[in-house]
Amino acid sequence: MFKLLLIHGPNLNLLGSREPGIYGTVGFDEINARMKRAAEENGAELRVFQSNSEGALVDAIKDARNWADGIVINPGAYAHYSIAMRDALSAVKLPAIEVHLSNIHAREEFRHRLILTPVCVGMICGLGWRSYLYAVEALIEILKDRLKPSAA
Amino acid sequence: MFKLLLIHGPNLNLLGSREPGIYGTVGFDEINARMKRAAEENGAELRVFQSNSEGALVDAIKDARNWADGIVINPGAYAHYSIAMRDALSAVKLPAIEVHLSNIHAREEFRHRLILTPVCVGMICGLGWRSYLYAVEALIEILKDRLKPSAA
Amino acid sequence: MFKLLLIHGPNLNLLGSREPGIYGTVGFDEINARMKRAAEENGAELRVFQSNSEGALVDAIKDARNWADGIVINPGAYAHYSIAMRDALSAVKLPAIEVHLSNIHAREEFRHRLILTPVCVGMICGLGWRSYLYAVEALIEILKDRLKPSAA
Amino acid sequence: MFKLLLIHGPNLNLLGSREPGIYGTVGFDEINARMKRAAEENGAELRVFQSNSEGALVDAIKDARNWADGIVINPGAYAHYSIAMRDALSAVKLPAIEVHLSNIHAREEFRHRLILTPVCVGMICGLGWRSYLYAVEALIEILKDRLKPSAA
Amino acid sequence: MFKLLLIHGPNLNLLGSREPGIYGTVGFDEINARMKRAAEENGAELRVFQSNSEGALVDAIKDARNWADGIVINPGAYAHYSIAMRDALSAVKLPAIEVHLSNIHAREEFRHRLILTPVCVGMICGLGWRSYLYAVEALIEILKDRLKPSAA
Amino acid sequence: MFKLLLIHGPNLNLLGSREPGIYGTVGFDEINARMKRAAEENGAELRVFQSNSEGALVDAIKDARNWADGIVINPGAYAHYSIAMRDALSAVKLPAIEVHLSNIHAREEFRHRLILTPVCVGMICGLGWRSYLYAVEALIEILKDRLKPSAA
Amino acid sequence: MFKLLLIHGPNLNLLGSREPGIYGTVGFDEINARMKRAAEENGAELRVFQSNSEGALVDAIKDARNWADGIVINPGAYAHYSIAMRDALSAVKLPAIEVHLSNIHAREEFRHRLILTPVCVGMICGLGWRSYLYAVEALIEILKDRLKPSAA
Amino acid sequence: MFKLLLIHGPNLNLLGSREPGIYGTVGFDEINARMKRAAEENGAELRVFQSNSEGALVDAIKDARNWADGIVINPGAYAHYSIAMRDALSAVKLPAIEVHLSNIHAREEFRHRLILTPVCVGMICGLGWRSYLYAVEALIEILKDRLKPSAA
Amino acid sequence: MFKLLLIHGPNLNLLGSREPGIYGTVGFDEINARMKRAAEENGAELRVFQSNSEGALVDAIKDARNWADGIVINPGAYAHYSIAMRDALSAVKLPAIEVHLSNIHAREEFRHRLILTPVCVGMICGLGWRSYLYAVEALIEILKDRLKPSAA
Amino acid sequence: MFKLLLIHGPNLNLLGSREPGIYGTVGFDEINARMKRAAEENGAELRVFQSNSEGALVDAIKDARNWADGIVINPGAYAHYSIAMRDALSAVKLPAIEVHLSNIHAREEFRHRLILTPVCVGMICGLGWRSYLYAVEALIEILKDRLKPSAA
Amino acid sequence: MFKLLLIHGPNLNLLGSREPGIYGTVGFDEINARMKRAAEENGAELRVFQSNSEGALVDAIKDARNWADGIVINPGAYAHYSIAMRDALSAVKLPAIEVHLSNIHAREEFRHRLILTPVCVGMICGLGWRSYLYAVEALIEILKDRLKPSAA
Amino acid sequence: MFKLLLIHGPNLNLLGSREPGIYGTVGFDEINARMKRAAEENGAELRVFQSNSEGALVDAIKDARNWADGIVINPGAYAHYSIAMRDALSAVKLPAIEVHLSNIHAREEFRHRLILTPVCVGMICGLGWRSYLYAVEALIEILKDRLKPSAA
Repeated sequence: MFKLLLIHGPNLNLLGSREPGIYGTVGFDEINARMKRAAEENGAELRVFQSNSEGALVDAIKDARNWADGIVINPGAYAHYSIAMRDALSAVKLPAIEVHLSNIHAREEFRHRLILTPVCVGMICGLGWRSYLYAVEALIEILKDRLKPSAA
Repeated sequence: MFKLLLIHGPNLNLLGSREPGIYGTVGFDEINARMKRAAEENGAELRVFQSNSEGALVDAIKDARNWADGIVINPGAYAHYSIAMRDALSAVKLPAIEVHLSNIHAREEFRHRLILTPVCVGMICGLGWRSYLYAVEALIEILKDRLKPSAA
Repeated sequence: MFKLLLIHGPNLNLLGSREPGIYGTVGFDEINARMKRAAEENGAELRVFQSNSEGALVDAIKDARNWADGIVINPGAYAHYSIAMRDALSAVKLPAIEVHLSNIHAREEFRHRLILTPVCVGMICGLGWRSYLYAVEALIEILKDRLKPSAA
Repeated sequence: MFKLLLIHGPNLNLLGSREPGIYGTVGFDEINARMKRAAEENGAELRVFQSNSEGALVDAIKDARNWADGIVINPGAYAHYSIAMRDALSAVKLPAIEVHLSNIHAREEFRHRLILTPVCVGMICGLGWRSYLYAVEALIEILKDRLKPSAA
Repeated sequence: MFKLLLIHGPNLNLLGSREPGIYGTVGFDEINARMKRAAEENGAELRVFQSNSEGALVDAIKDARNWADGIVINPGAYAHYSIAMRDALSAVKLPAIEVHLSNIHAREEFRHRLILTPVCVGMICGLGWRSYLYAVEALIEILKDRLKPSAA
Repeated sequence: MFKLLLIHGPNLNLLGSREPGIYGTVGFDEINARMKRAAEENGAELRVFQSNSEGALVDAIKDARNWADGIVINPGAYAHYSIAMRDALSAVKLPAIEVHLSNIHAREEFRHRLILTPVCVGMICGLGWRSYLYAVEALIEILKDRLKPSAA
Repeated sequence: MFKLLLIHGPNLNLLGSREPGIYGTVGFDEINARMKRAAEENGAELRVFQSNSEGALVDAIKDARNWADGIVINPGAYAHYSIAMRDALSAVKLPAIEVHLSNIHAREEFRHRLILTPVCVGMICGLGWRSYLYAVEALIEILKDRLKPSAA
Repeated sequence: MFKLLLIHGPNLNLLGSREPGIYGTVGFDEINARMKRAAEENGAELRVFQSNSEGALVDAIKDARNWADGIVINPGAYAHYSIAMRDALSAVKLPAIEVHLSNIHAREEFRHRLILTPVCVGMICGLGWRSYLYAVEALIEILKDRLKPSAA
Repeated sequence: MFKLLLIHGPNLNLLGSREPGIYGTVGFDEINARMKRAAEENGAELRVFQSNSEGALVDAIKDARNWADGIVINPGAYAHYSIAMRDALSAVKLPAIEVHLSNIHAREEFRHRLILTPVCVGMICGLGWRSYLYAVEALIEILKDRLKPSAA
Repeated sequence: MFKLLLIHGPNLNLLGSREPGIYGTVGFDEINARMKRAAEENGAELRVFQSNSEGALVDAIKDARNWADGIVINPGAYAHYSIAMRDALSAVKLPAIEVHLSNIHAREEFRHRLILTPVCVGMICGLGWRSYLYAVEALIEILKDRLKPSAA
Repeated sequence: MFKLLLIHGPNLNLLGSREPGIYGTVGFDEINARMKRAAEENGAELRVFQSNSEGALVDAIKDARNWADGIVINPGAYAHYSIAMRDALSAVKLPAIEVHLSNIHAREEFRHRLILTPVCVGMICGLGWRSYLYAVEALIEILKDRLKPSAA
Repeated sequence: MFKLLLIHGPNLNLLGSREPGIYGTVGFDEINARMKRAAEENGAELRVFQSNSEGALVDAIKDARNWADGIVINPGAYAHYSIAMRDALSAVKLPAIEVHLSNIHAREEFRHRLILTPVCVGMICGLGWRSYLYAVEALIEILKDRLKPSAA
């Protein structure tokens, strides 16, 4: 049974009430509940961590090295400048998928610069809470693929 | 029953043989077959179009206005410079999801410029053939949401 | 009697239905009919060509060398990146006037880069279908000027 | 009967003698006379203002608010840096069309930056004195369109 | 009675001793005392928060949603890169005024990039501790204006 | 008794009628009257100068050297390109505070470049007519500070 | 016996008549004839393909995978922006040499950006029709080298 | 006898009192007197014009066409952005030499951009009032050279 | 006896296990032990602080003002964007030497931007754990130099 | 009989031993011997010059004016910054062809800037020692062409 | 009696024969002779040094420290990139005036970047051989000024 | 016993007298003597080379291939533009450490671009003559490490 870490960056605990035109109306707790269920249905366990602090997020990534098999991460605004989080993801060497609720490419210019994406497996954006859903599903599939004898 | 158009841009018909380290080993026909099946399982019909020609891709987008409910598009290299395809997507006003097999943000600098994404609902990259799968599923969910009375 | 070629680039065959807030409400066929009439009234004949394909547009420009006296061209999105069409216009050496329905300078930054304009006589934008009208009239005047003995 | 203001920016009073290879051979007074006639033939009255001073041009635009229905403006060199004139055009809220005698896109790089065009209806360049002519005609048509019941 | 939050970003607790040539000689506690008094004199209550941690500052902004009517914020160095704080300010939708003790436009180039200002009502810089004073006064005036029947 | 010069740049005489969504609804004369009163209440005299001409504004700054103790200046659009006004401010060596009615950092990119601010004491923007008010008050305080024996 | 594909991009079929000052006076058919002869003399067979369409050029590169040993390509204007052709060349993995008739580095700034060259073996420009000749010769030498036992 | 125009741009009438560390201690009237004398000693007559207004400077350049043989110009701050003055210098076609008292290349970055210099014969900077002296002498020599039979 | 603070930024507590190809194989505790020993051998005392949090690092720098004589700092990823840490270093006015284990100039472009270095005495990179060693030695030498009578 | 100068810039005397993966395995002397032979076979004489010094290379180019008919030049690293060598090539007015062993466009970004190429006839890169061979052959053909009566 | 060094950079020994349209027709030896005479007439002695080698030019500047009172330098192409020569000029601390025969601001973009000028007293360009003449005269005047009692 | 080459670039022979505020007061010969002693104390021999000529420095690096085990290099100003020296260092494949006396990151913008550093092991700056000392020590340690059996 795979163990997954779901990381939420700054302001994401406001979900549901924060600018619903951009981020959707599904609340923070509801998303986490759905993701835990989705993980379980696919034979995995999912733990959730949220912080507004870059340092605490780096700590969480680092700690994942000791227990997790993969990471789904919505870095929020830190997606655009946190080299520290990028370095943490590089260091732990766990497969990670980045997600964004909104379509960051349709927003301000400074949201087009993506610092963490190059060290992730892939990225999903603009699909609301389902961005998380597909990331959880994909991560589990990737972990299963790695168990197969001939996976390259 | 929703009708979907799956568009593949240049060089994607080479899938399976073309640089598998970057694009994966699942072939072009296999991906299309899987997507048709996934669409059917979700109560939708999916047609496939591939061309290496920007003009033919613009034509296909334009024609979708007459019959399709939504578009999944892997624009290939045109993702980075085809304003004509962007204008076509804007004009037809169908919900579209952009997909890429590889993690374009982890490749050359010129692949970080995304011309079509701002006029799409969202984007998925780096998840191999599953980038398509989640886009098909998400598109159908989006279309279902729109049928609901109170969707905002 | 002068022979003119009117070239429309990608997506312009959607005119009338496509984003009328930007491009106006006069349809594609109506514009062409008006331009043919305007040419005739000024003692010229006008042929129309539209394509979404950059290559077909290059072909059309090249072929104009054999029969046309001048070109009115709305390159659509290709205005911003088609060096191939620019080279074709340079090669045929016919006087050409570029037109745009919308005011491209009031739109996205990437529409401010104009690749073809430097090899045209001039450019008209933002006047809706009348952008075409004045281009047709101006082109005929330019051709008449060239017939005059002392034109420099 | 519409009232129009034709504004000429710096150095345009030299027309006819100034670098005819770039600006044509028709003189300043001749252009103004032709434009007055063209306005009259289309049922409008046209007044002319020229100044080399940015401040005087801003004054003239501001004063137009009290009597004019629309503006044709050749900002000359100020086209490339006068944010003050842009603000004045925004403030008076009259429809304005920008014109240039020469094809500014075929000249020095610094002439490709257009500060005023985004707050104008449209722009015409490269057609010599006829750039003015079509602007006057188009402006009157735009004013007529606004009088029509269903204009959007 | 309005409730205001005064936020100080990194290093501002050093005020008084830190580079007085740039930041003035009035100490941190003294500024806070003066601001509380100024708020009271204008019929408002002011609470103070300082942190060197971006995450704690995001937390404080988020919590203000539950009790405060407006924010005066000196983001310190985070003014130039904290998209997370900007997102927090956008999310809470409280009127905020940004202040800086020094004239940031007269300092290093990297201090000219302002990330938070676009989501604030306004900004005051260079007036020493009085930058705070006028921000407190202005914020209270803005809140009073909003209570008036016809404020737009 | 201090003598102050209040300078308004281009288009500011339109205040009250010009784009109230951006610049507020308090008129030009009303602002000047309020500022004169505010100056008087703080024991100062204030004279007002407005011009749309960069040269006249430079003249006014230069002349202030002969009679004024400080300057409050809203340079309007010239804020973004008038090196001539900057040089004038540098030359007269009077303390100056720059003000803007609107939050220039929340507007077009080209309004983020500030040419005069580095030679001013500070800047206030986005607070409507109160931007002027606080500048007048701050300027008088600065002048008072300079009279004190130990001011550094 | 090696099989070579000679690809000409847009406007090259105009050779001989098109701007001879830049492109030389040897015609399109003549160049092709000379290249076929040169190939034969070096023990190779050469087929020619020309198109103005980016998509058709991608098709031709892709098809070469089935029969050719190497490619000589003059991408014309597409040299500067066709990421699709670059991807095709990468995908087919045949040795390719890029050629240009004119010295593109001595022309407009936008012709200095070379998109395809990094995935070619090398590039020759400015030598007129002989650019092709040396490319054909070099390509055959490279293919011969690869047949040698110890080639690295 | 040659007739020369000496033009001073904005703030130069402050010379002598304005920042002597940068501009030297010789006053405005003294420089003009010296230049008139220098012109006379070389058999020329020199008239002086100073304005802070860009428009008035353009007027002065334009009027010089009717009486002057050459221009010495210190454009002051306008050196860095007045395309209008550049166009005026181009239009009048008189030989002009640009001067600056201070070494503009040793000052702020924005003073390194020179708009007028490309249409002048040459430029002298950093030599204080002697920058003017050598410009006057050089201009007269250039005018003498042009009178010689074989000057190329 | 000098008192030194050794600060480690984010992810450095992973040393030894984290990407040894880049950062070397000597572990975090081992480096700290060696540095303490080196300090002692040179007659100094060294305390160690590590945090992944920018705010905590700012706190640590600030607190050093009360007890330390100098700082050796490996800011990790914060080297490239933490203006807050730079401001803290400026404020405490202690001599600081920046170190990096890897040669940051040989890595990604974004690691070439150094925010803290200008307010440090110097920088050492690429020498693995010895980067720290030489920094400790140099810092002590600098402190000794300052005790000498005639040090400038 | 034509006289040719073959110039090698810095580090090229290391050829054969220097990074063979990039520069090939044919040694410096061997290349020179082959080129002399190739020249002779085409009825020309070739002299070789190599230096690591920019000044000595400028000297060599300058001296060629007295005896050579054309130049083949591999400027090595100076290709990317030696304006002095460019000026020398411009001054001597001999036809020159630039060569590079490696495909400089497939290497670091800073090797894409080419300073000398615009003043050469053409450029060949990426073909190893054969880059030289074709340059020698092409240069001789160009010189022969110039002897023909009607060459333009 | 002052001692002056006149330094010529690369290619300047070709003067007279090299591109006379740009550099004038007065030869290298003639310029040097005239400058020696001009120096003598002003009570100074002038020595001349020319080299195409950046290193030799640095040597010459360094040696001037031992005997010269000032430097007139035409750095030729090195003006645009030789930081080494700039450092040498900074180190020797002699007053230096930079000269250019041609108007470098009217030539290629890369000639607008001036590396040495900020450490010179001033610069003269575009006046042909007289650029040198005025530099020699100005340098002597500057040296005389320094001998005066009250020079600041 | 290891053999080391210490290379000094341009102007470094002026050390001691040249701008001591930037470069320190220890003279050139003194530094070299200290480095020789330091090398000897660590069981190595050190030879010194200084030149102001880029070519001579390339020569020296190249020659080191024949006798040296490693290089300490202060490239002086060439650090910022000598691709030729970079290529030489790459070619000789000896471990090299770059040093600078001053903190180049605290100086002009153009000194932040480092061309050689990416091909060195590491870099030390800002520590005065001790920058050299630690580089010598580190280089010897690196060479010793390489002799150890298990060094990777």
